[in-house]
Amino acid sequence: MHFADRLLNACRAKGNALCVGIDPRWEQLPSAVRGRHAGGSPDQVAAAYEEFGLRVLELVAPLVAVVKPQSAFFEACGPAGFKAQQAILARAKALGLITILDNKRGDIASTAEAYADAALRGVWSADSLTVNPYLGRDAVEPFLKSARQCDGGVFVLVRTSNPGAGQFQDLLADGKPIYQHVAEAVGAWTAENLGSSGYGDVGAVVGATHPAELARIRQVLPNAVFLVPGYGAQGGAAADIAAAFRADGAGAIVNSSRGITACFKPDDPQWEQAILNAARAAIKDLTGSTPMGKLRI
Amino acid sequence: MHFADRLLNACRAKGNALCVGIDPRWEQLPSAVRGRHAGGSPDQVAAAYEEFGLRVLELVAPLVAVVKPQSAFFEACGPAGFKAQQAILARAKALGLITILDNKRGDIASTAEAYADAALRGVWSADSLTVNPYLGRDAVEPFLKSARQCDGGVFVLVRTSNPGAGQFQDLLADGKPIYQHVAEAVGAWTAENLGSSGYGDVGAVVGATHPAELARIRQVLPNAVFLVPGYGAQGGAAADIAAAFRADGAGAIVNSSRGITACFKPDDPQWEQAILNAARAAIKDLTGSTPMGKLRI
Repeated sequence: MHFADRLLNACRAKGNALCVGIDPRWEQLPSAVRGRHAGGSPDQVAAAYEEFGLRVLELVAPLVAVVKPQSAFFEACGPAGFKAQQAILARAKALGLITILDNKRGDIASTAEAYADAALRGVWSADSLTVNPYLGRDAVEPFLKSARQCDGGVFVLVRTSNPGAGQFQDLLADGKPIYQHVAEAVGAWTAENLGSSGYGDVGAVVGATHPAELARIRQVLPNAVFLVPGYGAQGGAAADIAAAFRADGAGAIVNSSRGITACFKPDDPQWEQAILNAARAAIKDLTGSTPMGKLRI
Repeated sequence: MHFADRLLNACRAKGNALCVGIDPRWEQLPSAVRGRHAGGSPDQVAAAYEEFGLRVLELVAPLVAVVKPQSAFFEACGPAGFKAQQAILARAKALGLITILDNKRGDIASTAEAYADAALRGVWSADSLTVNPYLGRDAVEPFLKSARQCDGGVFVLVRTSNPGAGQFQDLLADGKPIYQHVAEAVGAWTAENLGSSGYGDVGAVVGATHPAELARIRQVLPNAVFLVPGYGAQGGAAADIAAAFRADGAGAIVNSSRGITACFKPDDPQWEQAILNAARAAIKDLTGSTPMGKLRI
């Protein structure tokens, strides 16, 4: 089934489009988890990340449809971190979750092909990944090609959520910011392969921290799924995100990482309950204050 | 010692600034190497890449100062590929070579920190890495911070060598292409920490396939080391690259990957000699046709 249709069906089944980001940091892990993997070696840190990530998946799988493991923290643990992230992606799929490998890759020609095949059809086998557009169309297209061989998806960075995002993304060329040029390219790519839901397999990463840009990009991109980071810990509020959705509640996935998986003090013995509470609160907030509340089977 | 000084000293000692890119592709490996790792599993492919990469290092270490392993091909082999790339980086350093981890990372805040620390001070421990600037200054600065804690270097993508590079990089904002805005940012970053050679620790990736842009960016960036891909197999000629150098022959590193490490037919039993011949020919070409020929201790 087409990636956008799978994604929308999964969100409708759960009644929300919250994505739980899995960005493990050693100092934020539960003390109990750290205690079982003490020593400080990359292998031990990786084992703690794996244990924590798998437990997070079990906790949130009944509540949400999408998870997004962030490669940087696993990469920092070397080969064992790679294995831990593979295990988390595999378990997520087994639990029926849609996976976004957040690795922001970008390279040219056969090098991009190697990244794409690894992410979507090889050693990672995620449902989708994030891609950096700076190198231009021939660096993005190998990712689309790979995605289309496995009903996968690609989320292209358009307007990111960080404070300095505008340094290059907001520069005006031909009267339009660079991010809009990127958005228009995403529009052309996603129109190449629309699912029965009307959405394409190429989405856009647009930060929650810039509501005006979010609305503008939604106008440029009626058929693209938005992956919206920056909600919660980074400062984006539900009201800021409303413009990312189409009127029927579809069209956007909202990510929260630290707001859910680092919402407790490390020595809190009730950290699992805290994660559940934070996920439920985020869902309530988002479905109450944005069109996401209309998502139903 | 400051990264730029180390790099320039190493190039002067070898009398050239050729960088050998290590981008192993299974179908281009010597048949003899493939035969020792047949089976097709990611672990077997990784073992072949490691054997080949280590042999390439031994062959080229007497000739060149810099090597650049490309992460994509190792990542495609999973955890064993990660280990293979670690082994190649470690051996390169042991042989006195300067290493560039070509992984084109880019992310925000603490995520960028994790990538940077892994690349320069952690599980990779390369001398330098490549970074994608699309996310803006606060996404690049964690890489600079990490580099400055270990006398490492950062090469920021400015104008890449692929045919579609211009789609976003050449858009004009305030009368200047986007790549020039990025180059000016690189200029500010590199000026923060100049070595005794007069070069900074933040370099620019500028493709050999665009000679006019190369000359323009050199004017904007007098103090940055250029990493120039696209020479050889991608179509850039030595004459096209001349503008990357300053008059004394310093200031640029020219990469060749396939032109050296895939210059033979897989069943050629003389593949090691072919690699040596190709490296020597590239050095002769570059030192004969560009200011690189003036590099001496």
